[in-house]
Amino acid sequence: MTRPVRFLALLFPNVTQLDLTGPAQFFSSPPGASVDLVWKDRSPVVTDAGFAIVPTVDFATAPQADVLMIPGGQGVFELLEDDETLDFVRRQAAGARFITSVCTGAFLLGAAGLLVGRRATTHWNSHAMLELLGAVPVEERVVRDGDLITGGGVTAGLDFALTVLAEVFDPQTARAVQLGYEYDPAPPFDAGHPSRPEADAGQVSSTLQTRRELREPVVRRAAARLAGRVEPVG
Amino acid sequence: MTRPVRFLALLFPNVTQLDLTGPAQFFSSPPGASVDLVWKDRSPVVTDAGFAIVPTVDFATAPQADVLMIPGGQGVFELLEDDETLDFVRRQAAGARFITSVCTGAFLLGAAGLLVGRRATTHWNSHAMLELLGAVPVEERVVRDGDLITGGGVTAGLDFALTVLAEVFDPQTARAVQLGYEYDPAPPFDAGHPSRPEADAGQVSSTLQTRRELREPVVRRAAARLAGRVEPVG
Repeated sequence: MTRPVRFLALLFPNVTQLDLTGPAQFFSSPPGASVDLVWKDRSPVVTDAGFAIVPTVDFATAPQADVLMIPGGQGVFELLEDDETLDFVRRQAAGARFITSVCTGAFLLGAAGLLVGRRATTHWNSHAMLELLGAVPVEERVVRDGDLITGGGVTAGLDFALTVLAEVFDPQTARAVQLGYEYDPAPPFDAGHPSRPEADAGQVSSTLQTRRELREPVVRRAAARLAGRVEPVG
Repeated sequence: MTRPVRFLALLFPNVTQLDLTGPAQFFSSPPGASVDLVWKDRSPVVTDAGFAIVPTVDFATAPQADVLMIPGGQGVFELLEDDETLDFVRRQAAGARFITSVCTGAFLLGAAGLLVGRRATTHWNSHAMLELLGAVPVEERVVRDGDLITGGGVTAGLDFALTVLAEVFDPQTARAVQLGYEYDPAPPFDAGHPSRPEADAGQVSSTLQTRRELREPVVRRAAARLAGRVEPVG
């Protein structure tokens, strides 16, 4: 892609901040890349880690993204019926070269009607629910389907970001960023996914249940709105 | 450690924000944990990724940390001769159960006199310079020496954070956090450290040279100040 390249990430209340800050760090690094964080206004936004991050642009003044990125977290489920946000996401997506999400950010893309028939992934704790919005859920850490690139839960955002950089620029740029941020992971435990040997089965089942109880009603309402939405005649 | 446990991370201008935001995410998760971000005042602090994060406390009102955490980035080298910051770090370190750093945050601990004779690590791009401050540089991703736990460059903060959680709470808590944030890394390239096969040797040598030129003078001045510092008689 011709530089400069504009990355635009949604920053909303109760975002899982690492979904956003991990990829934002990687995206900020290549020459010619710029990263903006966008919300309805430019007041500081409180994240799920308790501290606030300041948007760099608002919905009204945001530049057209080359790469649109939606992070996840419980806050995303408050937005699935928020027309102001959904309209902004649709508008940006229409002009973006890549439409992307990390973690449960995929549900906002889904509620905006952008995942119908598309292969996508999300956090393991909510993966099965993605189908309700018409997506084809794929159990991989990073999934590409044409101009749509989605990452799994939270820290999958780092692997996602390298994948995006390789597509947007080239593999050499992605490898340079990986080296610069010393991304040579060596977790001291092997519990990072339900499939891993040290993952606690009880935690997995209780998390799946609580997330479904908490999130499925609003995902179903978003799906119903989507099904009833009359597309403007072009 | 008896809960609640207070994590306190330094937030300064031009911090490499992922050094901070990665561990802060992990530390915020266990029941009974709280995370504060501290700077001289509570105005938003601009990070190296271009956006600002808001401190939750300032030097004057910060609670005593159980776990003190210093992230890195080029901004840390502006602080190596800043007595207000060095005094704050020393004061907090004196009461903390664990003294920790990620990436080049180790240089601030070193300038505060907290690494003399201690095993520690930092980003590969500045690793050798750590010795100037009296540390024993160890080439590992996470290094523990008693109450001192240091992590390597940027994304090493995630492996570091799990190690800290296992020490502060227990391994079960660390594994639960790992699963919750789906930390099951699968980078699409293998270039995350100079020792890896896809790392670009030219990038490694030019980075080592530029970092040395940029940082060694101030590290040497901090070392000289440290050598000349008269310790108060207790």
